[in-house]
Amino acid sequence: MPDSSPPLRHLLGIEGLNAGQILPILDLAESYALLSRSRSAPRDALRGRTLINLFFEDSTRTRTSFELAGKRLGADVINMTVATSSVNKGETLLDTAATLNAMRCDLLVVRHAQSGAPALLAQKVEASVINAGDGMHEHPTQALLDALTIRRHLGTLSGLTVAICGDIGHSRVARSNIHLLSALGSTIRLVGPPTLLPGAMAGLGNGNVTIHHTMEEALNGADVVMSLRLQKERMGAGLVPSAREYFRFFGLNRKRLALAKPNALVMHPGPMNRGVEIASNVADSPQSVISEQVEMGVAVRMAVLDRLARGRRPS
Amino acid sequence: MPDSSPPLRHLLGIEGLNAGQILPILDLAESYALLSRSRSAPRDALRGRTLINLFFEDSTRTRTSFELAGKRLGADVINMTVATSSVNKGETLLDTAATLNAMRCDLLVVRHAQSGAPALLAQKVEASVINAGDGMHEHPTQALLDALTIRRHLGTLSGLTVAICGDIGHSRVARSNIHLLSALGSTIRLVGPPTLLPGAMAGLGNGNVTIHHTMEEALNGADVVMSLRLQKERMGAGLVPSAREYFRFFGLNRKRLALAKPNALVMHPGPMNRGVEIASNVADSPQSVISEQVEMGVAVRMAVLDRLARGRRPS
Amino acid sequence: MPDSSPPLRHLLGIEGLNAGQILPILDLAESYALLSRSRSAPRDALRGRTLINLFFEDSTRTRTSFELAGKRLGADVINMTVATSSVNKGETLLDTAATLNAMRCDLLVVRHAQSGAPALLAQKVEASVINAGDGMHEHPTQALLDALTIRRHLGTLSGLTVAICGDIGHSRVARSNIHLLSALGSTIRLVGPPTLLPGAMAGLGNGNVTIHHTMEEALNGADVVMSLRLQKERMGAGLVPSAREYFRFFGLNRKRLALAKPNALVMHPGPMNRGVEIASNVADSPQSVISEQVEMGVAVRMAVLDRLARGRRPS
Repeated sequence: MPDSSPPLRHLLGIEGLNAGQILPILDLAESYALLSRSRSAPRDALRGRTLINLFFEDSTRTRTSFELAGKRLGADVINMTVATSSVNKGETLLDTAATLNAMRCDLLVVRHAQSGAPALLAQKVEASVINAGDGMHEHPTQALLDALTIRRHLGTLSGLTVAICGDIGHSRVARSNIHLLSALGSTIRLVGPPTLLPGAMAGLGNGNVTIHHTMEEALNGADVVMSLRLQKERMGAGLVPSAREYFRFFGLNRKRLALAKPNALVMHPGPMNRGVEIASNVADSPQSVISEQVEMGVAVRMAVLDRLARGRRPS
Repeated sequence: MPDSSPPLRHLLGIEGLNAGQILPILDLAESYALLSRSRSAPRDALRGRTLINLFFEDSTRTRTSFELAGKRLGADVINMTVATSSVNKGETLLDTAATLNAMRCDLLVVRHAQSGAPALLAQKVEASVINAGDGMHEHPTQALLDALTIRRHLGTLSGLTVAICGDIGHSRVARSNIHLLSALGSTIRLVGPPTLLPGAMAGLGNGNVTIHHTMEEALNGADVVMSLRLQKERMGAGLVPSAREYFRFFGLNRKRLALAKPNALVMHPGPMNRGVEIASNVADSPQSVISEQVEMGVAVRMAVLDRLARGRRPS
Repeated sequence: MPDSSPPLRHLLGIEGLNAGQILPILDLAESYALLSRSRSAPRDALRGRTLINLFFEDSTRTRTSFELAGKRLGADVINMTVATSSVNKGETLLDTAATLNAMRCDLLVVRHAQSGAPALLAQKVEASVINAGDGMHEHPTQALLDALTIRRHLGTLSGLTVAICGDIGHSRVARSNIHLLSALGSTIRLVGPPTLLPGAMAGLGNGNVTIHHTMEEALNGADVVMSLRLQKERMGAGLVPSAREYFRFFGLNRKRLALAKPNALVMHPGPMNRGVEIASNVADSPQSVISEQVEMGVAVRMAVLDRLARGRRPS
């Protein structure tokens, strides 16, 4: 599966990547999506390579998606889930890096509660690092899988209007999507309660981002509507009122969706709180591509792992 | 390893299966048992297939048995252990099903505290579902491995008298065994304290089931004696008295075993509470086939995985 | 990779092994270290073999090292982490052994809080047992990887003076190292607070062990300085004072290291408590071979697994 773009060393975020770096990953992922359906992924692409899933926060979905991607390409996959409590009494992140180097890790997938932890590790490990979500910073493979899903349906990632709804301020998913969609020439509308949507967010995305405080305003004529998961611990804590109140003002329901373009895509990074940020009949509507996002997640991770591993091979 | 029975789509329970569906699985398992001993299982039978162990209740033994079975046939095996607590704040079972479909799961092994959860998933997933124990409903691979173990020793599953002893009312193992043994023409005697043995159990098994309240009555002349694990949380809670009292009235000891046929088989699904439901000298006696049950467990799971995967292949 | 030494059945400890048994493992590990660097380990050495990591104490590092070693040689690797709490309500160690036999486990890696648990299992399982740390008894693969690391730098394991510093009394690492280094003709100096260093330790190692209570005395002219991890729960509990006090008296700092030979090796089994048992500038100095220990850990475990599996094959 040849492509001609320059090799990536790590995937720490979308910020700073351009269309010429993003699109080949999507193209490769597209072909992996087809191969996965026919159970015919090239199982020797990562044969003899070691992939370590280093998760300082637990996430069954994302960890499973990377594990599947690695195994389907023939890698040796090792899961290391490190409870935060044992980090406190454990070694420093830099000592962990030294350990991973010594173990000849080739591909390191990192999720960490602190923004910047994957970038710090990337400075110290010989492995290629993939950020699987760090604090409130980035979650680049999520943005790539969102982009691939959009492109499959709308044929382009340029000139679109994408509304991102909910807890924007704490969301690494939103941040990575803003970087990716603006780099490819789309416009992003952010909408959520003021407590969850700092005005400074408008500064991201090179002028392609606008801030809104009503769903009606944000969804009007949109091509894509992305609903974000609301962390339950934020409800009733002064940031947002109850689940019921939240749904009333910011829930994605049919009436609001009708304001978007006729076949606007409905997206959600999962897992969903039905009846909180999204109505069940919207999540299950024909406009919803939420399951396809999960499918593209495996394909995108196969593509990223393959690209990064290829960049490491002696030519 | 060809067989001619019609393909199964799922294995959700034994209820409703007939001898023509059960026996080919046992035959295939028998041949896998031999191949496992010589470390020569056909490692490409499930190559490129994804097996997900989705355990909502932890069970090291059963999960390990399925994991071994899948790996020995060359599948990509992914463990997803979901703590019940996180289910509460997590997605619905149907959203989990959509996620598994999107990940192109081929074989889904499910354990869940609620009866019917695997059947519900089976309606929504494209994968073949294997019930690895659901609530107080069924545990079909346990009944199959029990049957295979019996057949290896007694040469038949028909015309036997099988005593099942202990906490029958809460036992999915008992329920699956009743369905299987009665379908194949054996008689089942159930024995346990009245609080753990509802009279309605006699309604299962098409008239092949009788209810008893003394071990002596139930074991008299039996071909097979199955002892069930007593859940510790049920002791001293009004359902059964102390461990000592339980053992006195319902423990499987030498004296009681002597009432069964001379070479009656002693079985237990494990893990055992020695000195509670079974005496150590009975568990370790030459009549005990408890370890062989574990061995046949891997073989039966290989057979089930292979059969279900074969049913999925385009012919 | 042929070698001519007699096959080992288990690796339960270093005590009782002689140079003729130890050195071929190191030689084999040396060649695996080279193959790992070039990602060319022979992936069929353990193909079709089942390796079970049975950890009654959690240890991410050691478990990962064995998992990598097994996967790089093509084994089917199964992790069974058994929380101590569930052991209490679970089956006996001997019933676990019977289960592992029934599952046709070939290689069993065991970590357990009780000294002697792996040896007890070895009496009952058909698998080859590797002790991955048992109570205060032994941790043989740690001693082997330490030895390999030393030999790579100093060219020999004979005639050396090795200082082992810290919590000697509770350390299985110290015990295994004493056995190995004394068997190969080196001298061991033990140093630590009297509460953590029982005088009886001098009885190990056939007269090659001396006891010291100041770092200065122990490090003077040493070829190798091994710092041991101090368990935090021992600090401030009467055994040792605070971390600060401990570092003041027994921490490995530059000034003390200067008393050892000019290029003396600095070693630590990890994970380190920087500023407690070892100063950061010593851990990161050019004399430190701590990361190489981790790398040799995977290689030594590959060698041990390969040797034990080979001993099992019909000739």
